[in-house]
Amino acid sequence: MASGPSDDIESLISTMARLPGLGPRSARRIVLHLIRKRTGQMAQLATLMSGVAESARECLTCGNVTQSDICPICQDPARATGEICVVTDVADLWALERGRAFKGRYHVLGGSLSALDEIGPEDLRIPQLITRIADENASEVILALSATIEGQTTAHYIAEALEPTGVTVTGLAQGVPIGGELDYLDDGTITAALRARRKL
Amino acid sequence: MASGPSDDIESLISTMARLPGLGPRSARRIVLHLIRKRTGQMAQLATLMSGVAESARECLTCGNVTQSDICPICQDPARATGEICVVTDVADLWALERGRAFKGRYHVLGGSLSALDEIGPEDLRIPQLITRIADENASEVILALSATIEGQTTAHYIAEALEPTGVTVTGLAQGVPIGGELDYLDDGTITAALRARRKL
Repeated sequence: MASGPSDDIESLISTMARLPGLGPRSARRIVLHLIRKRTGQMAQLATLMSGVAESARECLTCGNVTQSDICPICQDPARATGEICVVTDVADLWALERGRAFKGRYHVLGGSLSALDEIGPEDLRIPQLITRIADENASEVILALSATIEGQTTAHYIAEALEPTGVTVTGLAQGVPIGGELDYLDDGTITAALRARRKL
Repeated sequence: MASGPSDDIESLISTMARLPGLGPRSARRIVLHLIRKRTGQMAQLATLMSGVAESARECLTCGNVTQSDICPICQDPARATGEICVVTDVADLWALERGRAFKGRYHVLGGSLSALDEIGPEDLRIPQLITRIADENASEVILALSATIEGQTTAHYIAEALEPTGVTVTGLAQGVPIGGELDYLDDGTITAALRARRKL
């Protein structure tokens, strides 16, 4: 009779294998690593996880991940600049916060429009965005969406939906990334950078 | 003031980022995925983890991961065939069990000899292996170690250390893997397969 990992180890492995970016092999490797560590890293991780699982929720205003009903950014009066930055995902919000360049508030869509996956405007908190613009008397909406087909389709849809509100709608600049070598850039980026060239 | 993930989410991410094969980016992605899932996958994972963290230990005989002092393989009298298969790691034991070809018992070294990492024979349960051979009256020790420099150095050392016991020491065959195309194989494998050619 073959005897692999025991039942509870097996179900831990198969649960981890379903996480994004992991598979059976990497999940096995992680679980064995955690079992081997005599420092109790696994128990620590379990505690952290159940803590986050209990406390984490969506900010009722912007959709950010938070531990209260309203996230710290939406609570901070200094960030009521009248600028709302629309992002696809909380990961994008964190990336922008790491850059420390944006001082306003966010609105997390939670995905991109997709006819294939049946994701429509109601699934993306777009009606909430329109309500917010009036409530917060916003002057500018910055669409910080990915430069992919889905991202640009979503940006286009939102720009049109916001037209009646009269708010200024802007998008991120497209061009050569900092440190980018022209030789390695795709044609689309080079063309966009050339079109949007600016005086030095 | 920049406001990224909250403290407990941040420490969950940084703990996960230290797991083998993961980094800050993939850890962020996994944590956000777990937070977004409203099905309670994170709580489930936390429960599984604390269960395994509490119950998993090393088999006192062979070093396999188990929930009792002695693992099911070492307890199974049908597997007392006198053959002991020496593996580097529990992952290798599981791989061999998936193949269902080996009917004997295992001995998990827990690593390879390495002068650089200061891993010596005592760290690798080699003294325990010598004791087991006498205790279990073993007839054959199969060294199922990796075909890397470290693995082969370890195999060499063990073969020499076991010489006084008189036990037969064998190693895995080397050659073309099943489904392997010659064109894609490295020179070392082709040379080894040619040297160990057999009559059809």
